[in-house]
Amino acid sequence: MNKQITLAARPVGNPLPSDFSLEETPIPVPQEGEVLVKTLYLSLDPAMRGWMNDSRSYIKPVQIGEVFRAGTAGVVVESQSPDFKVGDYVTGGWGVQQYGVCLPNTLVKVDTKLAPLPVYLGVLGMPGMTAYFGILDTGQPKAGETVVVSGAAGAVGGVVGQIAKLMGCRVVGLAGGKDKCDYCVNEMGFDACIDYKTEDVKQALREACPKGIDVYFDNVGGEILDIVLGQIRFKARIVICGAISQYNNTEGVKGPTNYLSLLVNRARMEGIVVFDNAANYGKAAKEMAGWMMEGKLKSKIHIEKGIENFHASLMKLFKGENFGKLVLQVGEE
Amino acid sequence: MNKQITLAARPVGNPLPSDFSLEETPIPVPQEGEVLVKTLYLSLDPAMRGWMNDSRSYIKPVQIGEVFRAGTAGVVVESQSPDFKVGDYVTGGWGVQQYGVCLPNTLVKVDTKLAPLPVYLGVLGMPGMTAYFGILDTGQPKAGETVVVSGAAGAVGGVVGQIAKLMGCRVVGLAGGKDKCDYCVNEMGFDACIDYKTEDVKQALREACPKGIDVYFDNVGGEILDIVLGQIRFKARIVICGAISQYNNTEGVKGPTNYLSLLVNRARMEGIVVFDNAANYGKAAKEMAGWMMEGKLKSKIHIEKGIENFHASLMKLFKGENFGKLVLQVGEE
Repeated sequence: MNKQITLAARPVGNPLPSDFSLEETPIPVPQEGEVLVKTLYLSLDPAMRGWMNDSRSYIKPVQIGEVFRAGTAGVVVESQSPDFKVGDYVTGGWGVQQYGVCLPNTLVKVDTKLAPLPVYLGVLGMPGMTAYFGILDTGQPKAGETVVVSGAAGAVGGVVGQIAKLMGCRVVGLAGGKDKCDYCVNEMGFDACIDYKTEDVKQALREACPKGIDVYFDNVGGEILDIVLGQIRFKARIVICGAISQYNNTEGVKGPTNYLSLLVNRARMEGIVVFDNAANYGKAAKEMAGWMMEGKLKSKIHIEKGIENFHASLMKLFKGENFGKLVLQVGEE
Repeated sequence: MNKQITLAARPVGNPLPSDFSLEETPIPVPQEGEVLVKTLYLSLDPAMRGWMNDSRSYIKPVQIGEVFRAGTAGVVVESQSPDFKVGDYVTGGWGVQQYGVCLPNTLVKVDTKLAPLPVYLGVLGMPGMTAYFGILDTGQPKAGETVVVSGAAGAVGGVVGQIAKLMGCRVVGLAGGKDKCDYCVNEMGFDACIDYKTEDVKQALREACPKGIDVYFDNVGGEILDIVLGQIRFKARIVICGAISQYNNTEGVKGPTNYLSLLVNRARMEGIVVFDNAANYGKAAKEMAGWMMEGKLKSKIHIEKGIENFHASLMKLFKGENFGKLVLQVGEE
């Protein structure tokens, strides 16, 4: 049988276990041209919270009763396509289920000798692409500038910070907890990392960024965005990648009250969505794989297990309990 | 004697008459190299509210006891400089006083045969420059796009809308009152203008911008900024020029709660300050003067009189009681 997680109800505030339903259906049979893939890992992403809402966004909402959308990695177990053979490792987006029938053009073959499979949901997947294009194309960091990134120990933030270091910037992270901050500084080479749970962020940021902030890559929104806006420099760039602090906010999103700092500093705030760069994923993945080989780009994966634990595992993102790219292992080879 | 308005106290919320002081001092005597100018018109600008606050901004705050800063236009009455002669008309920034002693490099000679003197505080002055560079360089309007401007009947907004029309855009204004809206449509050629005081802005904007909004030039902030953010298109540009609705807000600035629309639409919000374009004022003024000659760029001046009425006249801006560029006439030729 094929276990699936479907959306049972649209959450208000924090998603509840009852907003999802575990279904069992027969393992589907691939038709001519199709491929049956066994899911090994699912990507758990903050963006999933947005897909639960019935509102206009950059992608269609998941419908009630539909298998929940997810980035996926797995192994081909049956193929009716000449492009794939049994045993091929692939990534795609066949959702939160143990097996998926896919069209070849929705799958990407990956090389697990180059990097472990979950890395293709992290640095070499959507989070890595988000970081790469967001910081380089929109953040436009220049050597000597100060770059601040929130969610610094997360899947996107860690890559953003390491790429900014490669560009010659001073990099300051914001993360929750001493372990994460130590990891950013000691393993990923950040110049500093502020523990937003225990430190006075305003003061700590001022000390870590004595010249002010040139680029801010924002994954969290809320109070921290406002504090950063108060410390930006002339012609600063603020990349809006996400706002995880606001996604479950039932009182409406907190807008940045310091937004007029954009005027004072002739600064720019710009939103990004990774899909716009699809044509250039290959080039970016190649460059990042190169950095990984050279030891210049590190990647941490946080693995949870069992499709039954989808909801509980996802909630770790919103509680800040993940450490590195969060994936759910739902199958064994 | 030389009547001057000095800053007596820093306002909290709305500026009060008691925040200013009317002083009388002897008319100053120009030294070698200096020029004595008689003030004919003062520019009254929303930005003046910011200069009253003791906070870091794009320009130093006015100090208590100091003559209040203002853009000025007048006539040379005594010259110790070979560059100026008595009778020359000039603009500068010698502040809210009847006479100013100025260094030649702070003055610009203007031709009152080309346009009446107050126009050099409007379309051919800082508001015109703000509009020109803000809409063209930061807004980057393309033919066929929809451009929305708030404060549409004001000194900056009116020019923004007319330039956007010249670029081939659909232009929708937001202004307070039927007279102002009629003026925008009938005199300045806007495609539509919404009376924010009496209309349902959200609904009216949706009807006036059926394809959504590509460029928003914001002079007001607050609720209207949020409504616009909810109706922007893919890759929209939001030019933050001002936020007059928030300047006297004692409860802190209202941040744009819809800012995540920047992410959804991969849109950009960017602040501008006119001074950054100083090197190109001449070129812009020449192009705008050309448009004025051809009848393509109209200008409306709202004249109040008497330096004693500085506070009351300035407050008209915040009450939306001005209609066109607001100037204070403080002297006669």
